[in-house]
Amino acid sequence: MALRDFSKDHHWLSINTATVRAQWKLDRIIDECAQRGIRAISPWRDQVAAVGLEKVAQQVRAQGLVLSGYCRGGMFPGVTAGDRERALDDNRRAVDEAKTLNAPCLIIVVGGLPGALQGKAQHKDIARARGEVHDGIAATLDYARQVRMPLAIEPLHPMYAADRACINTLEQALDLCDELDPSRSGALGVAVDLYHVWWDPKLQAQIARAGTQRLLAFHVCDWLVPTRDLLNDRGMMGDGVIDIPRVRGWVEESGFAGFSEVEIFSTENWWKRDGGEVLDTCIERHRSRV
Amino acid sequence: MALRDFSKDHHWLSINTATVRAQWKLDRIIDECAQRGIRAISPWRDQVAAVGLEKVAQQVRAQGLVLSGYCRGGMFPGVTAGDRERALDDNRRAVDEAKTLNAPCLIIVVGGLPGALQGKAQHKDIARARGEVHDGIAATLDYARQVRMPLAIEPLHPMYAADRACINTLEQALDLCDELDPSRSGALGVAVDLYHVWWDPKLQAQIARAGTQRLLAFHVCDWLVPTRDLLNDRGMMGDGVIDIPRVRGWVEESGFAGFSEVEIFSTENWWKRDGGEVLDTCIERHRSRV
Repeated sequence: MALRDFSKDHHWLSINTATVRAQWKLDRIIDECAQRGIRAISPWRDQVAAVGLEKVAQQVRAQGLVLSGYCRGGMFPGVTAGDRERALDDNRRAVDEAKTLNAPCLIIVVGGLPGALQGKAQHKDIARARGEVHDGIAATLDYARQVRMPLAIEPLHPMYAADRACINTLEQALDLCDELDPSRSGALGVAVDLYHVWWDPKLQAQIARAGTQRLLAFHVCDWLVPTRDLLNDRGMMGDGVIDIPRVRGWVEESGFAGFSEVEIFSTENWWKRDGGEVLDTCIERHRSRV
Repeated sequence: MALRDFSKDHHWLSINTATVRAQWKLDRIIDECAQRGIRAISPWRDQVAAVGLEKVAQQVRAQGLVLSGYCRGGMFPGVTAGDRERALDDNRRAVDEAKTLNAPCLIIVVGGLPGALQGKAQHKDIARARGEVHDGIAATLDYARQVRMPLAIEPLHPMYAADRACINTLEQALDLCDELDPSRSGALGVAVDLYHVWWDPKLQAQIARAGTQRLLAFHVCDWLVPTRDLLNDRGMMGDGVIDIPRVRGWVEESGFAGFSEVEIFSTENWWKRDGGEVLDTCIERHRSRV
């Protein structure tokens, strides 16, 4: 199967709004994207909240944009039952927001060891955290099915296992999907972000395994050498070592035909530049390097 | 099976000499370890070269120490056939040095994309690099078998896939062992360094798969939250989030009964402290937190 030709236009480009979060509030980001003919965005909850959910939903509709995903639910593990219950409440709200915004899926970053993100892990039992993630997704999925909002588990790079997500390979994410949604109903799948999975020797096989029922979102950026910060030193497509077209080929062979979403966290480079320059570069690199 | 009791002494402690490389040259490190009743070390090639191979070999014997490994061979991928041939020559020299030092195994850090460690990858084809790693280990193994020096492939954390090692999980390393040494002869195995593999959801199963024929070395330190540098911010055992005794239990259940080797790279903390304090802390933590 031939790769879709991205070189002529940016019909399949989506901008994850974190990419220009340092420059603009979400309402401006939406306008700037629309002005450039960018058809899709994937906003973060805090950016939506800062502008107002209904206002964002209206603006997205008015500008003729769609979402490629909504970021994000998850963060399920907790020390106490109360902690975990609050996480479930919050995930139900995230599902509702995704629904209001007409998102195709809610991205799930599952969480790691409770307290680790704040610098002080409350325990070291990653197997326990993984069990709580299983239970949290199961409970959220019950609710999400009712309102028909697919959940997309995003395996995060193993360097985030302690503090952000203890689902760290596509295989592990798909195993969990098979457990919780054995019929491959479409209610539960994965988000494949190249930054997190590019290194995986089983990547091609697991993308094929995912197929259209499970592969709900595709995120791109690049891995820089050297990488100077564990979180906020992602590269623009083409500036790093990921063979993006090759992996996009695998993704499209699996049946995926959706947006290619650019998500770049970059304290020292892209977040310091003019937002328009960043978006224009995303468009150019989407055509030439994705 | 009960875990070996480390709390009463440090009989099974080994010091990877990189842990105090910023403080002392290798001859001093050997003396300081011997004075503290530390029975084993794992030195690096550049540290050995700085003192002299024969001198180090003599000193190790004179002090009654043994090696738990020798760091390191590998770095096989190259752009040209000449590059790869030079890597093989260098690996043969590393095998010879390991033999002179009476090491139980040569640790192999396989390498990543050529040039990436110098900040400029020469290509993005990680599958090619993995193929060259396969061929490089095969060639080195031919030589190492002749002189009876086991090779221990060390899977490195996925965050090093581009620049240091494109073998990134224990499963992948063991698959390669099975390919190149199907009879489990003892000539080829793995080094399990908790820093690199602690996050892996398949860790327990793969340690069991390794067994005594394959599990040639066991390295410990800790994963800090937050981790401030991709390379040189490892933690002392007990200061991070790894459940070390649990994994040591799996390792010992698999039959491993060798040294627990402490390997800490720490620009901003342990490398700034007095070397004696670092070694004393390693001893204390080996007893209480490993």
